[in-house]
Amino acid sequence: MAVQTIATTASTSGTTVDLGPAEALSCRECGHRVPLGPFFACEECFGPLEIAYDFDGYDTEELRARIAAGPANIWRYAPLLPVPADVAEKPNINPGWTKLVQADRLAAELGVDQGKLFVKDDSGNPTHSFKDRVVAQALEAARAFGFTTLSCSSTGNLAGAVGAAAARAGLRSCVFIPHDLEQGKIVMAAVYGGELVGIEGNYDDVNRFCSELIGDSAGEGWGFVNVNLRPYYAEGSKTLAYEICEQLGWELPDQLVVPIASGSQLTKIDKGLQELIKLGLVADKPYKIFGAQAEGCSPVSVAYKAGHDVVRPQKPDTIAKSLAIGNPADGPYVLDIARRTGGAVEDVTDEQIVDAIKVLARTEGIFAETAGGVTVGVTRKLIENGLLDPSLTTVVLNTGDGLKTLDAVAGTGLTATIRPTLDSFREAGLA
Amino acid sequence: MAVQTIATTASTSGTTVDLGPAEALSCRECGHRVPLGPFFACEECFGPLEIAYDFDGYDTEELRARIAAGPANIWRYAPLLPVPADVAEKPNINPGWTKLVQADRLAAELGVDQGKLFVKDDSGNPTHSFKDRVVAQALEAARAFGFTTLSCSSTGNLAGAVGAAAARAGLRSCVFIPHDLEQGKIVMAAVYGGELVGIEGNYDDVNRFCSELIGDSAGEGWGFVNVNLRPYYAEGSKTLAYEICEQLGWELPDQLVVPIASGSQLTKIDKGLQELIKLGLVADKPYKIFGAQAEGCSPVSVAYKAGHDVVRPQKPDTIAKSLAIGNPADGPYVLDIARRTGGAVEDVTDEQIVDAIKVLARTEGIFAETAGGVTVGVTRKLIENGLLDPSLTTVVLNTGDGLKTLDAVAGTGLTATIRPTLDSFREAGLA
Repeated sequence: MAVQTIATTASTSGTTVDLGPAEALSCRECGHRVPLGPFFACEECFGPLEIAYDFDGYDTEELRARIAAGPANIWRYAPLLPVPADVAEKPNINPGWTKLVQADRLAAELGVDQGKLFVKDDSGNPTHSFKDRVVAQALEAARAFGFTTLSCSSTGNLAGAVGAAAARAGLRSCVFIPHDLEQGKIVMAAVYGGELVGIEGNYDDVNRFCSELIGDSAGEGWGFVNVNLRPYYAEGSKTLAYEICEQLGWELPDQLVVPIASGSQLTKIDKGLQELIKLGLVADKPYKIFGAQAEGCSPVSVAYKAGHDVVRPQKPDTIAKSLAIGNPADGPYVLDIARRTGGAVEDVTDEQIVDAIKVLARTEGIFAETAGGVTVGVTRKLIENGLLDPSLTTVVLNTGDGLKTLDAVAGTGLTATIRPTLDSFREAGLA
Repeated sequence: MAVQTIATTASTSGTTVDLGPAEALSCRECGHRVPLGPFFACEECFGPLEIAYDFDGYDTEELRARIAAGPANIWRYAPLLPVPADVAEKPNINPGWTKLVQADRLAAELGVDQGKLFVKDDSGNPTHSFKDRVVAQALEAARAFGFTTLSCSSTGNLAGAVGAAAARAGLRSCVFIPHDLEQGKIVMAAVYGGELVGIEGNYDDVNRFCSELIGDSAGEGWGFVNVNLRPYYAEGSKTLAYEICEQLGWELPDQLVVPIASGSQLTKIDKGLQELIKLGLVADKPYKIFGAQAEGCSPVSVAYKAGHDVVRPQKPDTIAKSLAIGNPADGPYVLDIARRTGGAVEDVTDEQIVDAIKVLARTEGIFAETAGGVTVGVTRKLIENGLLDPSLTTVVLNTGDGLKTLDAVAGTGLTATIRPTLDSFREAGLA
């Protein structure tokens, strides 16, 4: 906690930055407020800080029109995000406004009513995962605070998103990874030309080192997107909620199935939906949020099923590596949201994940990362268990791209091998 | 030619299909017209057939407004494409409306004036290459002709695009590949669940077999996207021209740098630009189209530099496999367009391709396939040679995604390896 205290205490110096409607950082636990700055933990209670906005004075229909006239990316929602009003003019990778695919063939496969099932496909983002949304926010915060290096620890999607965003913005990037990561993942992170530092140790060692660096003078001017810029970063996930509702014609879906890694995405989607209701952009009605995990890393699902309020950490062992956070920081908030909205938290095996990836690809032509296999697989299971109503509008998130987790479906292959003749073709029964 | 004659002769039966403004097939060489059907070669002169449209009666401003109100994909241009008016309501993968990125940092690197260089980034398409554009068209034609199987031969991007589009539409797909392709490419093609047939032979054997199949009764009901559906398929590339101009505020760019494989994309981009001029959607002004090849497969570039009108086939040997067509069907048309518009055709070495991929990634955060390395590398060379004017608006195409050609940048790696301590961090000079 020493590191967090150092970072937090600095907050009271009161930097003045222009981050649009964001007016302060506020503790989610005790409500204590501090001025906007690169801080993530409350100096009073060590609770997580999040952005407090001033949305007063927004006229609903004016806001709706402004959004509709905005760019085809997350900056259409700039009035609801911690970014300056002219954000769309700055070099950023401009993620978002990804497809909401009406998935009728998947619906038929899962037993959902036609026209009721949608896949929000975030593989369409610039580096092909939802991480572009959150990193794009962190980049704007980094600029506002005068940081010159954008950094993170990561073993996958986040590394690419940070590398790409920093490159585009002309900031230095420095990504820390375990030194013995697979070559393919190293290439995906290294190609953007920033510093890519291998740490002799495991992922825990990498994270411990990053925390040390943030608390040290050596880390001055460094924005760690998911540490000292975390409150800004996390807000990027709200845009998923905004887009889903706008793409449904400014309506709330009845049910959402969201993957859980740290749990931050799910909690921010709920926050985004609540904001739309308060702003009058959607009519208020009940919605249920379901959390999806891999069985091999299911601390929130286990807690949910046991009726616990606290989440007991697990040691992850699953192919869904982008969700493999054994001690999810937002776990208790996820439990609260799932219970409050009437949703649930469920998990699926690695085998079910692979099967779900294939089902989604073969029915909708969407090649999802393992995390997408988790949400589709959990959707199937929730229907079988009677927890998800197949007659209601349901949105399932795919947060990443299958090209990044090819190993998961490595067993897929040729359906036939023939000689280059019509006879051989006919013999194989392909006609 | 026997096969083509069979297919072509059938054309005179005169199918009536609704493909919007498309009213016939017309020979690019002799102008002979036949009704719309699954035909690709003229029965009179064996020239390539292309779509003839009826654009009469379009009011320019009404059309512009209709496009602006359309979906954020290629179907916003449905009035200009061989597709039914309700195309956006049918299950298709809905490619297009990809980002036109103002590439100021790349411009600085290449010596182009600030605000003048743009990258049209087609890695944002559903299966991450421009092939989604052409396959989406072929799919609509296949539906119109009552085909039940969507097929192609491919070793890369096309296989994924066909597999995904057929899956989404609920058609059967059958993709033919050499049986000994790398496992990674097999997985990318196989995941969509269609037939994936390995042919015992090389890529030429695969193509020869496919031609045989089209001419045989065994191929009845089969739409080969780039053979018997080629005239429809090829039109998909026009949408690149439409989008670039609309994204520039309905203005023609001064210069375009386009990769050459078969040459079809470049010729259709020119066709699209000409249509926009005729329709009054852009003001007429001169523009130059530059073709880009890899030195290891540069038949058009060689012919251009030698001042020839014919293209001598080459045996490809380059890392830019998606451009490795040694005998490009549209080569002569490309030569004509480059010369007519005042452009040029240039090529770069594999080493320059890799370097250009890295330059684009490090300046703009765009991770391009080898084909993108070819266009960026050629742009640099054209500027050095004084053929491309760095003071004019220039659009460079990136037609694919770096995740699909990771091998090309496999040399990229860690910039440092350290122990997880601040001392080690400082010693490495990273602070």
